[in-house]
Amino acid sequence: MATAKKIQEFIGQSSWIRKMFEEGMVLAKQYGADNVFDFSLGNPNIPPPPQLKDVIRDLLNEDLPGMHDYGPNAGYPATREALAAFLRMEHGVPALTADHVVMTCGAGGALNVAMKALLDPGDEVIVPAPFFVEYRFYADNAGGVARPVKTKEDFSLDLEAMAEAITEKAKIVLINSPNNPTGKVYDDASVRGLAALLEAKSAEYKKDIYLLSDEPYREIVYDGIVVPSLLKNYKNSIIASSYSKTLSIPGERIGFLAVSPAMAGIEDVIAGMILCNRILGFVNAPALMQRIVARMQGASVAVEEYKRKRDLLCDGLASFGYSFIKPQGAFYLFPRTPIADDVQFVRLLQQKKILAVPGTGFGAPGHFRIAYCVPDETIIKALPAFGEVMKDAAS
Amino acid sequence: MATAKKIQEFIGQSSWIRKMFEEGMVLAKQYGADNVFDFSLGNPNIPPPPQLKDVIRDLLNEDLPGMHDYGPNAGYPATREALAAFLRMEHGVPALTADHVVMTCGAGGALNVAMKALLDPGDEVIVPAPFFVEYRFYADNAGGVARPVKTKEDFSLDLEAMAEAITEKAKIVLINSPNNPTGKVYDDASVRGLAALLEAKSAEYKKDIYLLSDEPYREIVYDGIVVPSLLKNYKNSIIASSYSKTLSIPGERIGFLAVSPAMAGIEDVIAGMILCNRILGFVNAPALMQRIVARMQGASVAVEEYKRKRDLLCDGLASFGYSFIKPQGAFYLFPRTPIADDVQFVRLLQQKKILAVPGTGFGAPGHFRIAYCVPDETIIKALPAFGEVMKDAAS
Repeated sequence: MATAKKIQEFIGQSSWIRKMFEEGMVLAKQYGADNVFDFSLGNPNIPPPPQLKDVIRDLLNEDLPGMHDYGPNAGYPATREALAAFLRMEHGVPALTADHVVMTCGAGGALNVAMKALLDPGDEVIVPAPFFVEYRFYADNAGGVARPVKTKEDFSLDLEAMAEAITEKAKIVLINSPNNPTGKVYDDASVRGLAALLEAKSAEYKKDIYLLSDEPYREIVYDGIVVPSLLKNYKNSIIASSYSKTLSIPGERIGFLAVSPAMAGIEDVIAGMILCNRILGFVNAPALMQRIVARMQGASVAVEEYKRKRDLLCDGLASFGYSFIKPQGAFYLFPRTPIADDVQFVRLLQQKKILAVPGTGFGAPGHFRIAYCVPDETIIKALPAFGEVMKDAAS
Repeated sequence: MATAKKIQEFIGQSSWIRKMFEEGMVLAKQYGADNVFDFSLGNPNIPPPPQLKDVIRDLLNEDLPGMHDYGPNAGYPATREALAAFLRMEHGVPALTADHVVMTCGAGGALNVAMKALLDPGDEVIVPAPFFVEYRFYADNAGGVARPVKTKEDFSLDLEAMAEAITEKAKIVLINSPNNPTGKVYDDASVRGLAALLEAKSAEYKKDIYLLSDEPYREIVYDGIVVPSLLKNYKNSIIASSYSKTLSIPGERIGFLAVSPAMAGIEDVIAGMILCNRILGFVNAPALMQRIVARMQGASVAVEEYKRKRDLLCDGLASFGYSFIKPQGAFYLFPRTPIADDVQFVRLLQQKKILAVPGTGFGAPGHFRIAYCVPDETIIKALPAFGEVMKDAAS
């Protein structure tokens, strides 16, 4: 084989997902993209805050020398300062400074950098399931192994199951709240319980277990929910995040890592992250985007638009008898499939020109994911078809 | 230890380079950046083509829907089309299409993606030395091992030494022309000789050996030199490149991979690259930059400015008796150190407020690297100090 064996395997494993995407593209070509209801991708459809263009124009006019030059591997000092100031306030952690944040190529880059810096070969990454499918690859890239642990019926953390799963091999617990694919937000009690569990396990195994929190959807929450801060609750916590969803700029690959100032060995960890940002080939987070986000701390897309879409979709699906946990954040809904075989169910949806992703892809068979970051009318037009598929499945 | 053992080691290995940088920064603080002659970094000092700003303003005015959205992992079709059209012409390979190129986060991203797609554990990457220090890490990231091979006195390829070094373990030969740190350009005869060697070795070992060409400096060449095309000369060749130097935008992390259309198993290789671009956390090359370079194919900074700097520096150093091979491209000069210990010599330069990098960092002790992508006056002001250090070293 030309390519590495592992890569061949990975391609093989994901080939059914690709196949579904390809079938979807064939559908879109056949019927016109407007007549296909594509809920398969988490590509935010709400435009970035209008301020974004002004900031770019300002930067062009200011004509900074070296505007597009290599920067420090950790990010521009001004960007790190601005981010740290925002996080201090958002997380209520006054000790957090620019030295505790590293600018990255999106949250995907952030997670790879953090895992590379921390994982020795065979170290385990404990992940509540359902989970974002890429985590398996990210852990493997760094020589580690992702170890999924089930969550409760309502997708909240099952701390007993986690206690069992966290053995001496565990180095990282990776959570994602608001969650992709479920929209679940872990509440205060869960977060405190998890922190207590990790304190206990770290003491038991005489090693530091790190809590890595992937939270690009932190600002996309509904009904007055606030996402609890990990930084405040657990000393060995690390945030991986991005501006992809907050500012609707996922293609620009701009994100960050933030490390709890209370972490043991914090200087080593941050030096490791900065080195890994360099040697993994990211080098530095994209320059112009770093300068932009330095000026847009706290800015956000209009979240109430996602809320309206969520309600539209949830009300519609509930009326047809779909069973689901109402999302508290992010822009995904993860209903049970009315038939056991989720891949088959997603094919039935495809026959009605609806594209969605089977739960199997997220380690949770018997479910399917709907990304509702789409125009309202896509939801409205697709609802009758969702109803028909439910009816067919029930008969 | 908090961080992975390997990362601790890497930090340890590179700590003397860091130390020198830190000393340099102390110098800059002490005497003011203007009074320190910093030749340590390959950060292009010639501004981007003025067209760049117009292109960005045009894009802002056009207000494309989803301008900053996730794109395909391989890159936007329009960008790939534009790049392929340019490469067809530049390399004289009419069969090359958009399907044969993958947009990446810079050349650093491109190299990591290519190695991850190709290397099985323990596979060797043969690299002519001196070489860019990051190659070791990139090979290691993908489970491979970089194997340096000496070049000739004039830094041209030593094909006999390479023939010996290419064993059954070799999967990739990685070259960099114009070269960092030497400025060498491999000529037609070298490239044809290398291609013939790889054909023979591939046949001997009954496996495909890939020629990976890191060529971000392709457009930065002097004296009418043309960089020979690998794509035209060897069927299993891959180009990794970026717009960092051609457009002076290294901080923006925009580059590409281009695969010879004649490659065996080309579909597997490209599918592997696209997957790796995704799972390594790059996801897609930065969106806005992809749209920009689609409109700037063939644009370039004013190369004659680098030529003037090269001549200024070479003439000056020659007059003091420094011994070097005159660079044919890139913006680095790699003279012999007048004393054997290159680290010590670089410290002597530092005492005169000149920052450079010891050859040891590039696998070539007894040399030092001067990055001459600096203002002319930095060169002019620093020359007397270069002269003094030479005099001291000779006495």
